[in-house]
Amino acid sequence: MSSQDEIRAAAARIAPHIRRTPVIRLSPAETGLEHPLVLKLEQLQVTGSFKPRGAFNRLLAADIPPAGVVAASGGNHGLAVAHAARRLGIAAEIFVPEITPAAKRARIAATGATLTVGGATYDEARRASEARAAVTGALIVHAYDQPEILAGQGTVALELEEDAPELTHVVVAAGGGGLYGGVASWYGGRVGMVIAEPEQCPTLMVAGLLGRPADVPAAGLAADSLGARRVGDLAFAVMMAQGGRAVVVADEAIRNAQRWLWDRLRLIAEPGGATALAVLLSGAWTPPAGAHVGVVICGANCDPASVPG
Amino acid sequence: MSSQDEIRAAAARIAPHIRRTPVIRLSPAETGLEHPLVLKLEQLQVTGSFKPRGAFNRLLAADIPPAGVVAASGGNHGLAVAHAARRLGIAAEIFVPEITPAAKRARIAATGATLTVGGATYDEARRASEARAAVTGALIVHAYDQPEILAGQGTVALELEEDAPELTHVVVAAGGGGLYGGVASWYGGRVGMVIAEPEQCPTLMVAGLLGRPADVPAAGLAADSLGARRVGDLAFAVMMAQGGRAVVVADEAIRNAQRWLWDRLRLIAEPGGATALAVLLSGAWTPPAGAHVGVVICGANCDPASVPG
Repeated sequence: MSSQDEIRAAAARIAPHIRRTPVIRLSPAETGLEHPLVLKLEQLQVTGSFKPRGAFNRLLAADIPPAGVVAASGGNHGLAVAHAARRLGIAAEIFVPEITPAAKRARIAATGATLTVGGATYDEARRASEARAAVTGALIVHAYDQPEILAGQGTVALELEEDAPELTHVVVAAGGGGLYGGVASWYGGRVGMVIAEPEQCPTLMVAGLLGRPADVPAAGLAADSLGARRVGDLAFAVMMAQGGRAVVVADEAIRNAQRWLWDRLRLIAEPGGATALAVLLSGAWTPPAGAHVGVVICGANCDPASVPG
Repeated sequence: MSSQDEIRAAAARIAPHIRRTPVIRLSPAETGLEHPLVLKLEQLQVTGSFKPRGAFNRLLAADIPPAGVVAASGGNHGLAVAHAARRLGIAAEIFVPEITPAAKRARIAATGATLTVGGATYDEARRASEARAAVTGALIVHAYDQPEILAGQGTVALELEEDAPELTHVVVAAGGGGLYGGVASWYGGRVGMVIAEPEQCPTLMVAGLLGRPADVPAAGLAADSLGARRVGDLAFAVMMAQGGRAVVVADEAIRNAQRWLWDRLRLIAEPGGATALAVLLSGAWTPPAGAHVGVVICGANCDPASVPG
């Protein structure tokens, strides 16, 4: 778990490099939901996802070896590390799996980072990246399971609480749990945390049920952003300490949430970016009476034409 | 010109029906511009443009005749009037020209309003709508040239000044000038107003040069939202009183601004919605040293796949 002080320190460290993303408030009258809804538009962040918060925090807090940095990613973390490395004048090698979409690969390559396709899944790319780091001595920038990553992602919650102090519940999507771990660390139980996962990538759901992190399949529509093979140890510890609740949704509910964001708000989100909203719109989770619900829209690195209209 | 009191009254009247749209701040380091930039994300408004502000204000301030309301529009105003009429339980007839895109027609039809294609251009649709109103007795809801419309659109500026009091200049796109007239009325000379127009729809530019409203051609990429044949009398009076400056941009600059919004911010804007930003990015207007510039992104009623990637 990150402390509020660590998250505040991260916020100060990364401030020159990231955007303060806006929130938008939606009333029950227009959503048809029973409760007020606040969306944190984190897909408008630099590089199109929340990931540069953690990436910049890790790079700025570390001593960078001559070989630079290495990361494995379904795409968003890799793009964030590649972007941060370029901004800071550091060499970067990024490993992605075969499922990483062309839109993400092209953006990573455009930063000047070395891009390697290493295996079929995120987990295979992660192993390839670690083998490479063992050879070169590059600093590993993990996609979720490092304290600096959690503290960086926690700055989303610092901003959200300032801009929407009325929230009683916050919904975030999780793959390895970096965003969840950071946001839940910031709130420290002051809001109810709901963890949204695709049915086909249920890392936190399974870990909660088993009482320990375990490998799960990682497939489906959002696998390129939420397809970690297992929850990170740090996020798991937060979930155990706070009793966080994981809720899963089908790919069809994720598609519906993407469609809703365009139809109602003219916003584009990638599948993983719309997964938290899908939990609410599908009724997979129903907030209690009197709830004020915040939802983090966390990525939009897709082809706009791919969003169902 | 609207008074600040009229705009405040409009804001109170329409508040239950519209969204407070967010702003996002961008630093010179990330835009490459010389000045800080604030974008008002008004394309996230209900119905996908700023138009319901004026439409709701007009409908809520009027005695509605039995025949309901009638409006002519390239699409965004028509959709706003149709939406407001449905919300308020009023019958609506909307006249659009042939150039109105399918995305806009479908949204208007979905409200239950009667949709008629009346002529090749906005101006022909306007004449058809006025002929119809003469027969039915319906209330005409003009796309820009009525005091309630100006006051409604002026609420964009009321919010923008609250959220970004540091601005020295504000750039808005203009067709008939309803948004410009309302925003400039609110600021009353406290910021420099820049009016952005496509080269092929230069209504305010020509009126400023001639010293009177005059008919201009209305063509090109943004004609469905900015293709008024001439500036409204109300907006023209504001421009004359304040000495507002009109700047024109080529369609290619508008396309580049659409591309930039997606590439840098994962935002979709229709051509008219990106025209104000195009003025800055293309260098058609260069802010003075020390400027803090606000830009209103004002519409996104297009097919996302049509945005150049």
